[in-house]
Parts: sequence; C-alpha cells; structure tokens
Amino acid sequence: MVTYENNKIFGLQIAYIGGGSRNWARTLMSDLAKNQDLNGTVRLYDIDHEAAKINAVLGNRIPEDNPGVNGNFYYIATETLEEALAGADFVVISVLPGTFNEMASDVHTPEKYGIYQPVGDSTGLGGTIRALRTLPIFEEIAKGVEKCCPDAWVINYTNPMTVCTRMLYKTFPGIKAMGCCHEIFGVRDFFADMYCDVNNVPRGTVGRYDIDITVTGVNHFTWITKARYHNIDLLEMAKAYAKEKMAIPFDDAPLDVSGENWENMKTVMKRQHHFVKMDLLLRYGALAAAGDRHLAEFCPNHWYLGSPENVFNWGFGLTKVAYRAKQRRDRLELSQRLYSGEEKFTIEPTGEEGSHLIHALLGLGNFVTNVNIPNMGQIPDLPIGAVVETNAFVSTDSLLPVCAGPLPKDLKSLIEPIVACQEMIVEAVQKKDLSLAFKAFISDPQNNLSLADSKALFKEMCDNTKEYLTMYPEYQK
Amino acid sequence: MVTYENNKIFGLQIAYIGGGSRNWARTLMSDLAKNQDLNGTVRLYDIDHEAAKINAVLGNRIPEDNPGVNGNFYYIATETLEEALAGADFVVISVLPGTFNEMASDVHTPEKYGIYQPVGDSTGLGGTIRALRTLPIFEEIAKGVEKCCPDAWVINYTNPMTVCTRMLYKTFPGIKAMGCCHEIFGVRDFFADMYCDVNNVPRGTVGRYDIDITVTGVNHFTWITKARYHNIDLLEMAKAYAKEKMAIPFDDAPLDVSGENWENMKTVMKRQHHFVKMDLLLRYGALAAAGDRHLAEFCPNHWYLGSPENVFNWGFGLTKVAYRAKQRRDRLELSQRLYSGEEKFTIEPTGEEGSHLIHALLGLGNFVTNVNIPNMGQIPDLPIGAVVETNAFVSTDSLLPVCAGPLPKDLKSLIEPIVACQEMIVEAVQKKDLSLAFKAFISDPQNNLSLADSKALFKEMCDNTKEYLTMYPEYQK
Amino acid sequence: MVTYENNKIFGLQIAYIGGGSRNWARTLMSDLAKNQDLNGTVRLYDIDHEAAKINAVLGNRIPEDNPGVNGNFYYIATETLEEALAGADFVVISVLPGTFNEMASDVHTPEKYGIYQPVGDSTGLGGTIRALRTLPIFEEIAKGVEKCCPDAWVINYTNPMTVCTRMLYKTFPGIKAMGCCHEIFGVRDFFADMYCDVNNVPRGTVGRYDIDITVTGVNHFTWITKARYHNIDLLEMAKAYAKEKMAIPFDDAPLDVSGENWENMKTVMKRQHHFVKMDLLLRYGALAAAGDRHLAEFCPNHWYLGSPENVFNWGFGLTKVAYRAKQRRDRLELSQRLYSGEEKFTIEPTGEEGSHLIHALLGLGNFVTNVNIPNMGQIPDLPIGAVVETNAFVSTDSLLPVCAGPLPKDLKSLIEPIVACQEMIVEAVQKKDLSLAFKAFISDPQNNLSLADSKALFKEMCDNTKEYLTMYPEYQK
Amino acid sequence: MVTYENNKIFGLQIAYIGGGSRNWARTLMSDLAKNQDLNGTVRLYDIDHEAAKINAVLGNRIPEDNPGVNGNFYYIATETLEEALAGADFVVISVLPGTFNEMASDVHTPEKYGIYQPVGDSTGLGGTIRALRTLPIFEEIAKGVEKCCPDAWVINYTNPMTVCTRMLYKTFPGIKAMGCCHEIFGVRDFFADMYCDVNNVPRGTVGRYDIDITVTGVNHFTWITKARYHNIDLLEMAKAYAKEKMAIPFDDAPLDVSGENWENMKTVMKRQHHFVKMDLLLRYGALAAAGDRHLAEFCPNHWYLGSPENVFNWGFGLTKVAYRAKQRRDRLELSQRLYSGEEKFTIEPTGEEGSHLIHALLGLGNFVTNVNIPNMGQIPDLPIGAVVETNAFVSTDSLLPVCAGPLPKDLKSLIEPIVACQEMIVEAVQKKDLSLAFKAFISDPQNNLSLADSKALFKEMCDNTKEYLTMYPEYQK
Repeated sequence: MVTYENNKIFGLQIAYIGGGSRNWARTLMSDLAKNQDLNGTVRLYDIDHEAAKINAVLGNRIPEDNPGVNGNFYYIATETLEEALAGADFVVISVLPGTFNEMASDVHTPEKYGIYQPVGDSTGLGGTIRALRTLPIFEEIAKGVEKCCPDAWVINYTNPMTVCTRMLYKTFPGIKAMGCCHEIFGVRDFFADMYCDVNNVPRGTVGRYDIDITVTGVNHFTWITKARYHNIDLLEMAKAYAKEKMAIPFDDAPLDVSGENWENMKTVMKRQHHFVKMDLLLRYGALAAAGDRHLAEFCPNHWYLGSPENVFNWGFGLTKVAYRAKQRRDRLELSQRLYSGEEKFTIEPTGEEGSHLIHALLGLGNFVTNVNIPNMGQIPDLPIGAVVETNAFVSTDSLLPVCAGPLPKDLKSLIEPIVACQEMIVEAVQKKDLSLAFKAFISDPQNNLSLADSKALFKEMCDNTKEYLTMYPEYQK
Repeated sequence: MVTYENNKIFGLQIAYIGGGSRNWARTLMSDLAKNQDLNGTVRLYDIDHEAAKINAVLGNRIPEDNPGVNGNFYYIATETLEEALAGADFVVISVLPGTFNEMASDVHTPEKYGIYQPVGDSTGLGGTIRALRTLPIFEEIAKGVEKCCPDAWVINYTNPMTVCTRMLYKTFPGIKAMGCCHEIFGVRDFFADMYCDVNNVPRGTVGRYDIDITVTGVNHFTWITKARYHNIDLLEMAKAYAKEKMAIPFDDAPLDVSGENWENMKTVMKRQHHFVKMDLLLRYGALAAAGDRHLAEFCPNHWYLGSPENVFNWGFGLTKVAYRAKQRRDRLELSQRLYSGEEKFTIEPTGEEGSHLIHALLGLGNFVTNVNIPNMGQIPDLPIGAVVETNAFVSTDSLLPVCAGPLPKDLKSLIEPIVACQEMIVEAVQKKDLSLAFKAFISDPQNNLSLADSKALFKEMCDNTKEYLTMYPEYQK
Repeated sequence: MVTYENNKIFGLQIAYIGGGSRNWARTLMSDLAKNQDLNGTVRLYDIDHEAAKINAVLGNRIPEDNPGVNGNFYYIATETLEEALAGADFVVISVLPGTFNEMASDVHTPEKYGIYQPVGDSTGLGGTIRALRTLPIFEEIAKGVEKCCPDAWVINYTNPMTVCTRMLYKTFPGIKAMGCCHEIFGVRDFFADMYCDVNNVPRGTVGRYDIDITVTGVNHFTWITKARYHNIDLLEMAKAYAKEKMAIPFDDAPLDVSGENWENMKTVMKRQHHFVKMDLLLRYGALAAAGDRHLAEFCPNHWYLGSPENVFNWGFGLTKVAYRAKQRRDRLELSQRLYSGEEKFTIEPTGEEGSHLIHALLGLGNFVTNVNIPNMGQIPDLPIGAVVETNAFVSTDSLLPVCAGPLPKDLKSLIEPIVACQEMIVEAVQKKDLSLAFKAFISDPQNNLSLADSKALFKEMCDNTKEYLTMYPEYQK
Repeated sequence: MVTYENNKIFGLQIAYIGGGSRNWARTLMSDLAKNQDLNGTVRLYDIDHEAAKINAVLGNRIPEDNPGVNGNFYYIATETLEEALAGADFVVISVLPGTFNEMASDVHTPEKYGIYQPVGDSTGLGGTIRALRTLPIFEEIAKGVEKCCPDAWVINYTNPMTVCTRMLYKTFPGIKAMGCCHEIFGVRDFFADMYCDVNNVPRGTVGRYDIDITVTGVNHFTWITKARYHNIDLLEMAKAYAKEKMAIPFDDAPLDVSGENWENMKTVMKRQHHFVKMDLLLRYGALAAAGDRHLAEFCPNHWYLGSPENVFNWGFGLTKVAYRAKQRRDRLELSQRLYSGEEKFTIEPTGEEGSHLIHALLGLGNFVTNVNIPNMGQIPDLPIGAVVETNAFVSTDSLLPVCAGPLPKDLKSLIEPIVACQEMIVEAVQKKDLSLAFKAFISDPQNNLSLADSKALFKEMCDNTKEYLTMYPEYQK
C-alpha cells in the first residue's frame, strides 16, 4: 500500500518482467531515478535469472554512479514470476521470447518464397509466428496478475504489442493493462520539424507537444487523421509540401519515387525518407504514424514490398536479424562493462513515458497520450474488445480512451484485415489451435503465396521455433 | 482570420447570441478581460437590441472601470443575427425565450394537477414546453452558423441544454458545437470538502482539480461512476460517511430523512442537504452530479417529488418563478446602475470555463473537461447521436469525448427514458409535430396524470406560451 | 435418437415439465394425438407427482376414449426432473410456482396503495414478485437441460415469459429455447374479422393466416407495425374504422371512451372492447398485439389504470385471483372426472402451435411464426441478448428471428423501460440480489408510489411469498 | 392499382428494364405465362429499342405459340425509362452495359499482369471496372423509381449484384429493392444429390426444398453455415465424404488436388469438381454457396488463381469472353428465328423465382428464400446498410431478412475485405471519384500488383471502357 507525503509517494512496488536484454530495464531505471518523488521497490524477474541479478546490481548502484541522485528505489531479482508480482502496484513487461535464431527464422525464412519483411515482429508472417511463441507467456503473466496483484496497472512494451495486450485481457478480463509505444512521438517530431522548415524558423521553435493530433488505428499502423498547430492544418501542409517538392502531377497519384525531387524532402525528414508515409498521405489523406519499415508490412505485400528492388525504390531498408544480433551483443558488452565497474551507469533523460504514466495513475497529474487498449467505442466501427491505439486520458487509477470517431471507409479497408488476423491469432493461441493460426497466416496482407507454399512455409517456420511451441498439441513432446 | 504573436491571439471574432438578461454577458466580458492574451471583437446580438447595446457600452468601458486592464476586446451590438455571426471564430449562446410569464406557466401550471417542479427548465413537463419555444431559435441559429460561419466553434449555455445542443446538430450536422454546464464543478467541490472534513484538514487543502472523476449521463442527470483522490475511492468514502452519520442500517435502504443525524451531514454540505444525491448514491453506487432540485426532476415523480411535503422531507425547495423574476429585476437594476455610471463594472474571477475552452481550441493549451456533445461511442449503450455529457479532450480545433464505457444496467434504466423523451422532443420540433411532443410529455417520468388530464394540461401550457409557438400548425395565425 | 420412416417419426422423446394444473398438459396431449406422424414417449414431471401421474393415465387412455386415434405416445410420470430430461429431444415447460395465495398477493396487495393490476403475472409489481419465485426454477431447469439433454429444443409456455426464457439463456447460453405465446393469433383474428365486417362479407371469408404482419416488441407488449391483406393496409383501415365509428375529432386524440359510438365497435371486436388497443393505435400508429388487460400493465400506470373507475372507462376488467382459483378448481374437478372415467378425454383441435413447432424443427415442414428469443439483431436498437418477440423462421433444427428493423422512436420509448426492468430482474435473480430487484420494482412504469411506500410494499409482497424465496439471503432459514 | 378476384390478380403493371439480350426477358415471359393467376401489362425498356420491340412481339405471341395458354399479359416496348416505370407495381432489372469488347477488357486485360479471372463480373479487377460503368445506370433507374413509382418493388438480376443493389438504396433510400440470384439453388441440389448418393437412393428422392440451410455473406460469396435434412447434419456429411473419397490425412489440410481420388467425387458433383468449395469447407467448416469459378475470385488471389496451372489443378476453368460472345450470338439468332416465326416460342418451367416473389409480395402466399438487401442486423458484425445475402421472409408487401447471427471470426476475415471494397466502389460512383475507385482496386484480394502496375492497369482498363465513363470528370468530353 503506497503512502503519500507532500506529493511524494513511498512504498511503491513495481514488478519488472523481462528486460534481461538490459536496454529497456536500464531505461526504466533511469526514468525512475530521475523522478525522485517516487520511492519503493522494483522486483526484477527474467527467465535469464543472471541477467535480472545484473540489472538489480546496476539499479542499486545508481546513487553511487550518479552523484546527487538518491537511491529512491531498491532493486531485487526474484526467482519466480509470482514473487515478482505479489502485491505489485505496477507491472512492467518487456519480454523477448526465443533467441535471435527464432527471430532470424521469422524474418528470413519467408524470403525463400519471395516475401521480404523489413521488421517482422509486429505483423505479417514473422509477426504471426512470433505471436505463437510470445502469447503463451502473456497468458501466464495475466494469470499471475489475477492471482497475485489483480489491481495492479500493467504496462506492456513487448511486440507484437496489439496481440500481447489483447492476450492479457482475454486471459484476465478484469486486468488494467495497456500497451505503450513511442512511434507516435516520431510523427509529432516530424510535424514540428516540417512546420519549422516551411516557416524558416529554427527547428525546436515548435516542439513535439505543441502539436495536437487525433490518433486512430492499431499499433504500428496508427493513423493521424487530424494534426494542428495553432490554426494550421498540418496534414494539408504536409500534402502541399510533398507535392511541391516532388512535382507530383495529380493529387491521387502514387509518388514518383524514381525522381530527384526527393532530395529536398530528405532534409526535412532527417535520416528517414518517409516515401511510404507520404504516398499513403497523398492517397488516403491521413498520416500513418510509424516508421516506413513498419507501415510497409501492414499494407498489401505488393504495394511497398514484393522485392528488394521495390523496397529500395521506396527508400527504406530490410533490417537483417544479424544486425539486430550485433546490436544486442553491443548492449550485453556494455552491460558487462557497467557491471564490472569499467563504465559508469549514468542516467539520462529517456524520452519514455513510463514514469509519467505511473505518476498520473497515482494521482500526481493527469494527461492525454496514445495507448493500446481494448476498443470500448473509441473506434466505433472496429470490433468491441479488439485492442486499438488512440489517445487516452490517464488520471488517478483510470485510463479511458478518447473517442476517435468512425474510420473513413478507405482507412477502414486497410485496418480491418489487420484486426481480423490479430483476433484470429489471439483466439488460436487461447485455444491452442494451429489450424486457426494458419488461417490468419494465409489471410495476412503480406501473404501472396499459393496455399501449398503457405502450408510448407508455415510448417517450416513453426518447426524452427518448436522449442517454444510445446503448448500446442502438434508440438507436445 | 486570427493571427498569433508570442502566444497571443489577435483578430479573434466572437458572436454572442442572447445575454440580454445581462448576467452571462457580463460574466463572459469579465472572463475575456482577464485573459489578455486574447484580443478581438465581440458582436452582441439579442432580440432586445437595447439590452445588447447596453452590454456593448459596458464592455467597452471595462478599461476605464478597471485600472490596469487593457481593452483587449471591442464590443458592438448588431441588429441582426447574421451580422453577429458573419465570420465569427466562436459563437456563444445564452438565450432566454419568452418572459417570466411563460416560465411561470411552465413551472406552476402543473401544480394544479399535483405535479411540483423545483426548477422546471431542463426536463419534465416544464422543460418540455420550454423546449417547444426554445428549440426553434436554435434551429435558426444553426442555419445562421451554417451560412455565415460554418467553421466556428459554438458554445451553448442555454437550458434545456441537451435538447438545445441536439437541435444545433440536427439542423446543421457539420456544426462544431457543445453545451457547457458548471454543475459538475459543484460535485468536485463536494468531494474535496468531504475529504478534508473526514481527514480533519482545512477545506481547500485538497481542491476541485485534485479530484479525478469519470463522468457519464445527460446534463443535470450526470453521474460520477468513479472518483479518486490519490489512492482514495471517494465514492466509498461518501457512502461510509453518509451511513455513519445517518446510522442507516442497510446499504440499499432509502435514506431515513426524518432523523436528526443529518445535522452532521449538513455541515459538510454547506447550504445543500444532498439527501437526494446520497439516497441515489446508496442505492445505485454512483454520485449524481447536479443539485438535488435538478436530480429530483429526472427521477420518477413519486420518488422525491409528488407533494410539497415529500419535497420538504427530502431537504430541498421548490423555487418559485416569482423569486427568479425578483432576481432578474435586481440584475437589471444593477445593469442600469453600471450603465449610468452610478456603479463601476469591476471584473472578477468567474469560475467559468468559457475562455479556457477558447484558449484550448485555439491551440494555447489542451485540457479535459465535461461537455455535452452527440454520442459517438463515449457511452456505447445510449443511442449514437443523442447528446450526452462526459469528459472530453479539448485541444487545437478539436473536441473529442473521453469514453465512459457502458452504463451499469440500473443507471441505464434511469437515463434511457430521459434520452428517449429528449429525442422525441427534438424530432417533434424539427417536424413541427405537437402530437409527437405530447408523446414525450406523457412518457416523461415526471408525469403521473391520466391521459385526459395530460391532454388538458398540455393544451393549457401550450396556450400559455402560444405567442412563441407560431411555427407549429396548431398555433399559426 | 429419432428415426424417420415415410415422413413419420419414431422414438421421439418429450419431457413435459409442470402441467400439474392439467390444462396445458391436456392441450399438448390432444395436440400430439392429432398428429399421428409423431410417435414416442412423453415423460411428465411435476412437483405435484400425483398430478403428473394422473396426466400420464389420461394420456395413455386417449386411444380408448377416442376411437380411431392410435396411441402414438406413451406417457410416464417421473419422480425427478433429471429422469424427465435425460435424452429428451424436446422439453416443454409450463410451471406455476406457488399457489393462488401467492398469486393473490401479487395481484391484490398493491391495491392497498392504489395500484390496480388486471393480470399481474407478466410485468408490473406482481410480475416482478412472481419472477422472483419463478426464475430460480428456470435456473434449475436450464442446468438440468445442460446436463441431461443439451441439444434438446426447449419450448416454454410459462409467464412471465420474457424473463423466464431469458433466465434459461443466462444460465445455459448454449440452450435452444423459445417462449411461445398465442396472443398474436388474437390480433390476426381481429384484423380478419374487421376486414370482413368493413367489406360486408361473412367472417371467416378472410382468415387468420391470410393476414401478413410484422411483429416487434416484447411478450404481451408486442406491436404490429405493418399488417396487410392483399393490397390493403389493415392498420390504416383500423384507424379509419375506429375514428369513423367513434367520431374522434383529431388523429392524435386519446379516444373519447365516454361516448356511445363504441357500441358499433364492440360488434367488430366480440367480447373485448379494445379501447386501449385503439387508443394506442391512434396515438402510435401501430397495433399493440395483446389483450387490453395486458397492454394497460405495460404502459405508465396513469394511462389506463390508476383507479377502478379509469379501468372501467377504458372498457376492460380487473381479474380477481379468486376467479382464477375458481377456474382452477373447475379444471381439477374435470380432471378427476376424466381420471375416474366419469367423463371421456376427447381430443379436439387446440389452436396451439406446439406440435407444429416440433414438426418444423424435425424437418417436416418449415414455417414462420412469432416467438420469444434473445435479440441477435432482429430489433437492432434493443440490447443484444434481451429476449424479444418477433417473427422467426422455424426449420430443421433451426430457429432464426426475422428482422423487424429499428423501432420508431415513440414505440422505443415505451418498450425500452420494460426491457430495462426485465434485464434487472433476471440479473437480480441470477445474483440473488434483492436490492437490484427492488430497483426494478421502483422503476417499473406501474409504480407511482413514494420510495417509502415502495419499500414497505416490496417487503410485504416478498414476505407473502417467502416460502419460495429461500434462495435469497434475506429469506434463508 | 391491382384488383383481386378469386385469388387472381388483374391490372398488374410490370416494368422490365434491359433484357435486350433476350434470355432473361424470355425467361420472365415464360414465368408469367405459366402463372395464369397474374394478369396485366409488361412495359419493356431497353437502350436497344429494337430489341425491346422484338421481345414485345414475342411476348404477345405466346398464346398463339402455346395452345392452352391464355394471353394474361400484354407486352409493350417503351421509348423512355420513365414511360416504362410510370405507375409500375414491379420493376425487373436485367441490364448489360457495354458490349463484349468492354467485358473482354475487364476479364482479359489483367492477364497481361498475371491476374487470371474465371468470370470477372462480380468482384475483382474486372468486377470493379464493370461496376464503374454499370452503377451510374442504377443511379438513373433509382431516380426514375423515386419519381415514377416510389412504391414499386424492384427485382434486380444484374451483376455485380451487390453493388448494383446497394446503388439503388444509396440513391433512393426509400426504395423497395432486392437482388436475386439462383446460385444458392445449386448448393441445395448439391446437398440433395450428395445425400442420395451416400445413402444409395436415387437422386431426386430428396430434393432441393427438403434441405434447410442457413445463408450468410455477400452474393457469389455466400456461405452455408448450417444445412440439415431431417436429423442429418449435411455439412458434417460433406466433410466426411470429401475426406473419405480423397484420403486427406488432416482435417485442416488444404485438399490434395493432384490425387486421383477426386474421380469418385466427380460423379457426385456432375460437371463441376467443387474442389475449391471442398477445400474451403474443410478449412472453414462452412460451405461456400456459389460455383468454384466465382468463389476463387473472392479469395486472396494466391489461393486458387495466380496462374492457369493453379486454376487447372483446382479443377475449374477460365471462361473466355469469346465464348460468352458466341453464346450471345446463338441467343440472338434464336431470337430472330422466334421473331420470324421460323421457330415457336414455347414456354417451359424456368426454375426462377421471379413470379414466386411477385405472388408473395402481392399476398398470394409467403415463403422464405435468399435475397440481397441492405444489412439491418441480419449479419450484426457487418456494416449496417451494406448489401448482404441471407434468407428473407417474403410476404404481403414485405421483405424482411432472417437473422443469420454473427459471423465466425474466420469467415468474417474473408468477407469483410470484400464488403469494404464494395462500399468504396459504390461511394466512388456516387461521388464520381475515380481515386476512391482506385483504392478499391488496389485493396481487392485479387490484386497482387505493385502500385505502379496497378496504376497502369487501372488506367488501361478504364480507357478501354471510357465510352461508358463520361460521367467521371476524367472522361468528360
């Protein structure tokens, strides 16, 4: 039971599930250390118990490594999930089931059949298989929460975010859970930067939070249907800018991505080209709010993917899992250096909203931000109960979505098939029914294979991750 | 077209419709004068053109009467509605159709048949007749907005608020309108005061905005289904407090309002007894967020009204229209004294949110507050399109409701009949169909008369206000 | 498992629950005997085992008493519910919990407070208390069906029909149940007779099944929103007829029931005056399809009830329970005479659809009739799951409602409060929560008492039937 | 105004729109001549006025050519649409906009890009372009009906049926229209034949109408979710039969269509193999109720199409438009021979339900059949207003759908994208917005092209039919 004193909170209990790969765990620890009005205990649980222990050591060493920062949280690694959850006020989830071997199969096995995935974790063929091995863990966590801390708020950072969050609610309908993702911040920055560039004022003159946006859709395929700064319609500004800089002859034309005019655009958009985003904007009149690599995966395969050449023409890349593995090794090495004391664990601003959410839910200041929660009417023409992403009002022990209103017919035609596949996947895991999962696999907009090829590919991908599929009858030992 | 300079706004155009009875007009003028970052013109239109002219004079005299206050707005009275509306960025509506004669008929004629109304303006028999003469004006205003300023934001303060706001949307579906009411602030204050009393800290230690509430229902029959301060459930606190102070033996018992235990309660609740509110809380588990006089009118007649004795026992009064007429005369005399210069028009904090809304809609800082707008899913089990009251997120050129979720079955059974009557009244006015209005009249929870008596009473009440009903075939000259 | 031979069915197993009061049981037995293409066993279960045994004897004596009628069914009385249900293909329910003492309390106790009920079994104060003691039995039956014959079709004839049928689905959502009521046949006859009278052709020239009707609403408060014979709009004909014969000056006027013109009307309408039905028709444009005594109870108390005088003026009667008790004694005496052989059990056409439904569900000929089943969209603006009455298509192992479309706003305002109370009552019984039942009691359109009187009356009525309420905590021994 | 005499109808007025290609017109004329209880006038309107005149001559010659058949209808060709519609009781539509040149483009132009369409008229790329030139005609017809015969019943036989029928309602919401299609009869025959084969009884022992089915979906992609004969579950029988005859190892396996076991199956299924239908049945548990050629077009392109080889393996053919043109020439020659008197116009049973519908709507006997009408709740999880195909109850002046209940998640995932495209196409035509039509084109499950190829193909296909697209800004002269 937390106590309040002078707007400070004591006795807060946080369970942190996963994070063995360290990055997210250190982000949260930094975040908490920055917010000295929160005080309490963080219990770290990870399948890799050693990793959790290292994180605990690092967390407890923060005051030492950062002069002037008090040790407001005590970190402890637990051996079981239940120990971590018991009595928690908040549960933070960031798990990565399987190794890079399984991830490599998710992303690269479909390439044998000509299906290229730039990310492969949120949707599409890779996302489906990843869900098959990830969702059972969320089932277990939800059961744990129901048993050990039914009133806790659960903040999930794991991908595939929509189905992970949905699984929590399917398993324990009374859970108070949300999926949190920071891709939306990127689109806020994009608008702010564009505005500054167009008006010839220094970037930063207008910032992320000066922009007001209406958010609708599903995670990584979220759409901004209205964006305003003062009395400026930023969607119109973006359309005009894209067209002017690219000399596109017709409003509804797909972008001519072969031309040179994009060079100007690039300066607006930093390292990313945003060709996919702009093409969708000019066609649908709304801005898709995730990186192009994500967006391409949610659209029909033939639009922006299909071949490495087409991907290249649309200006984004296919991230190889080998690259991710390398990143992870770097992080592990950093972790070791921190642990050994070779390097200090210096906390820095993280840009994440984790502690902001905790503050608001504890009654220290409400705010509106985008979250992923079950549809209770915020998008009235998507199925009730499906997890969707919109703005939400976060206040004392309360998280209520802001209505986004009905989807325009054309956006609906893009988002609906994604939701349909997600609903099938979650039900497939709940019922341990791989044939239903296969229906999601063959209905996915990414899939353009014959039924025979689909069947072979599905089997190969499942086999590659079979160690994590032992809860399905087909893979029971 | 407004311009922005250093977070100040210039060239703002506000149309103020009504306000000839001065109170609201002066409130708005005070509010605007306090907010020196807004600058522009207010065009005042009232059927009583002289009253509008006096208001304009008073408005323009503000800098003179209030040293240190700049004249950020220029006030002008227009002779037509269209002149006021043309090019407006905001339209504020506060009209009072008819005189106190008509209002007296609304409130007191039903007393002949044993129906007592403490207010008679929002719902019930009086509210129905008031709607018949008021809604045609909102039809006219909506048409004017569509023609003269279709992008303007329209803020309505007029009662019956729900049906007035609904009429605006029925007439011009593209309108950006809301009904604003401050009754909810009262309930926030109630919670804050109770918390302080229970914890023996001075009132004000916890304030109105420290409380987070979930709001659902229709105006003047709005319900708080969750209320929190820090980790305190304020609804549970209120229930315990009411029971402890009143020694009510069973949770579901109607309050024993004859006892003496209420004396303690009264000190919490200032001048109001809140017996009705507490009785509903103990029975329904949610707090009805309006004055008891309003609440009693939305419930079945036999619960809290029925006879002056029953009203007395429930601890509230039946406001006589004569008293209102007196109040108005006082306001008119004050107005004259201000106009003549006998007294100064000193601006003071108003507690109203009018200029706060304007700021947010212009992009100077978003916030969440309760408003009355058409249901787009915020209360998923009330009809789509019906005007309901919930929290809403107000941001740049955007007003989106916060989902309140489905109504509990028992609250739904109370609110649904009200919505049904409101929908019939609005359609009756739209179609100029008095027989449909009569169906609303006989289905109103306030009405417990025989059909013959209902018919006689309806005719008498309509006849008493016939001067304002000339748009209905029965009263065409 | 039934077998088919030359469109005859053998081995059919029917469980008959209740019927100890004999009337319904004999009706079913007659019905089955008339349909010699059905063959099998009927297992009779009644709390009054002797009564069931008598019925079995009578059933088995049919061939003897009716020359030319083969004994196609064997009747047997079982000692337990489960024996009756085990392996049943059809379950027929017609139970009467309590004695006439309890029924007398339901109907007459409210008269102390000025509330007069002409029937008191379907809705209103009496219907609510009757539901409290009846629904637990339906819970038990539903559990039995789930356990003993989950695929059986369940046909319920018990009042209050809506909530009884709803309880079956609440308890065992997979049940295949329907509530059947013949009041609609009366309105078909009414239309046919009226048509013949207006056209001066002998009654019977146009018959019950020549009329096509659209049915919507809830049982005993069902509405005919369209009625046709050939190209004649029978609703318009009825309106014209009522007005012409009664010289009503305005379309929307309540009927002048004091006049003499009704005399002509009576000849059309046989023994019933139909004043309430006609008044509703002229006001709402649709024909309410139940006897006036039922209809009056579903409308606000003050419309057609309120006092014996008002009831008299509206041309219907208040059936005393003593009269019902007398009827029952007559039936029991008849039963004894049949049992002793003093009188023969001669089967006759019954006009009931029981065996017709059985035929259709077994695949011997589909048809459309009105039934009471959960709303799955047939009335899109009433809550999904609530039991409603519309036409339905009955075919092989299938019962699917015919869409009635959205309710007009004015009818919705009448039906919605009824549904709201019914939903609360069922939930109250499911949760054994008398305080929720009390909320239904005070929200019922029949109730116009003060809260204090309501509370006293509710307690008295519950006490009077307490022997049957031992499943509620308040009455547990 | 029709009159009734001895259950015969006189003075019936039917407008027949289209039919210049003669086949449908002669079918209707045969149908009407067979039903001598209907009498009246048929007014024939076709863009090809000569063809209409020939049809009129043939119609009026029926009594001469068919001894014993009275001339119950008089046929007349009108020069304008309005002349045909004025005062009509029924309007029958069967139009074919464009020539076989346009149809050839619809079907064969996409083959350049590897997209093969077996039919190309209902959905997919060909269906989309066909809709663009057909729907404006339905707009015109709907306006004509509103003006000339607003109470007429409109029966549409034209493809693409769903969007044509939807366009009628979009243009004149009060229209009483339905789309009628006989594909469902085929599936009834399939079940009946299979049952007979399995039970070794002669085909015909059980017939089309002995089978009861639940119908849901959209035209040509309709699904049978329940099928019964007596107490036999015909879906289970079909699954077992397919598996037994084909030795498929696992329930959820795609059919092995390379094997020889299909040979047995073929004898059941006459000329059609039904491989697609069986594959869908084994995967989804429901029977898709249209020819495999249609079904393949509604599924993702890669499932059953993709290449002529895949099509061949799945056992159906790609109908060439040249073949259709040949068929039409044959029909025209026959028409000429009939006109010249060289051959007699002998009427024969048609198997169509046209006159059956007319009978029922006129009050001569109600029945249940499958029709295409706007969703009013019959499929509660598809959008309200979208045209769907379910059973419906046809009775006097009334057509009301039978509820099919919610779609299973997996079927929904197949049907929803089709509905989304259809809704976009209809809106595109209504708004004359080719860019919205293009969005439907690129979201169609048939389309697996890059955006650039899609754009080129869309333009080529539109250009090929540009003569009929002059109502779109891009093709205005």
